Amino acid sequence: MTTASPTTSARRRLSPAARREQLVALGLERLKRGPFDQALVDEVISAAGISKGLLFHYFPTVRAYQLALVEAATAELVTVLTPDPDLDVLDQLGRGLDAWVRYIEDHQEGYVAMVRGAGADEALLALFERTRDEIVAIVVDGMVRAGLAAEDSPLLRLAARGYTASVEETTLLWLRDRPCSRARLMELLQASALQLAAAAADLADLADPRS
Amino acid sequence: MTTASPTTSARRRLSPAARREQLVALGLERLKRGPFDQALVDEVISAAGISKGLLFHYFPTVRAYQLALVEAATAELVTVLTPDPDLDVLDQLGRGLDAWVRYIEDHQEGYVAMVRGAGADEALLALFERTRDEIVAIVVDGMVRAGLAAEDSPLLRLAARGYTASVEETTLLWLRDRPCSRARLMELLQASALQLAAAAADLADLADPRS
Repeated sequence: MTTASPTTSARRRLSPAARREQLVALGLERLKRGPFDQALVDEVISAAGISKGLLFHYFPTVRAYQLALVEAATAELVTVLTPDPDLDVLDQLGRGLDAWVRYIEDHQEGYVAMVRGAGADEALLALFERTRDEIVAIVVDGMVRAGLAAEDSPLLRLAARGYTASVEETTLLWLRDRPCSRARLMELLQASALQLAAAAADLADLADPRS
Repeated sequence: MTTASPTTSARRRLSPAARREQLVALGLERLKRGPFDQALVDEVISAAGISKGLLFHYFPTVRAYQLALVEAATAELVTVLTPDPDLDVLDQLGRGLDAWVRYIEDHQEGYVAMVRGAGADEALLALFERTRDEIVAIVVDGMVRAGLAAEDSPLLRLAARGYTASVEETTLLWLRDRPCSRARLMELLQASALQLAAAAADLADLADPRS
């Protein structure tokens, strides 16, 4: 194997870019197992075999490091949600939802922290809003390509944003209470998407009283 | 006028229960205009004509006072969402949604702080979860009484929880971007509720692969 894992490469000299990337990769890996806290920072430093001083060379504050990790985690989410346009549209929806639920399962603590806690910090909140907008764009684009909606519109974006929140919330409640099988959860999320698209399309045909 | 406003009654001697109530009422009123912060505490003290020491007699910490305010605010929300069972079911849905959107409009900053920031504090998060569960119970009860669902079920609760998140999220995006009229927003929320109920009812007829 020529690809060294972050841990085995820990004590080697790394270029600044590679070191930064390593520290983000280690933090992301650790975020899957628990919240962002001092223990995470300590574990990353130890796994990378560096001093706390060197971490702060790359990320001037703990907050800056946290933000870099959350940015990387949300970029990962947007990537897994971006569909393969060669697939059948229902397959795209199904796979996208499956990837989303798996992501929330894999990052439960971090996801809850972000969804429920971002508001406590302006930079996190801005990142949260930007990520939501990116996901909404993916959902809207999928609906239009699927012919579920005639075109991108403010109303469709509103509906898609509500839908993204409902997917998260439903999945978080499902993880909390496990009231049904995962397959059943997926059916519900998929059916809701189709129903919501139908509702938005019906409304889009009616003129907005304001316009 | 015999009903004294909290402000004019400020310097009167109040019973402990009345004083506590007054401090919560003043704080709630102020929460409609901005976030919970030191300025809010100062304004409440000044409006009540009391010393900071007396506030801390009733609420041992600023955090305890904040929690009391958020508890009162969420209780208010649950009250406005509780429908009048004598109304036609569609009227109940329409009025409930209208009251909800109005509540979010009236408490925008506090609502965002709660929805996006509760996770930063365990007591707030517990209150947030409890409130969500209460609203879900109201939504589920309404669906069952409307005949939109045969009975309360785990699946219906999942769907209702997703729906509550979508109402909030859609309304918050609408407030941020104002992409359409308020009437149009209400149509979208109402149509989504009906479509979601249909989706959940369809699924309820199919056995859960797990059961």
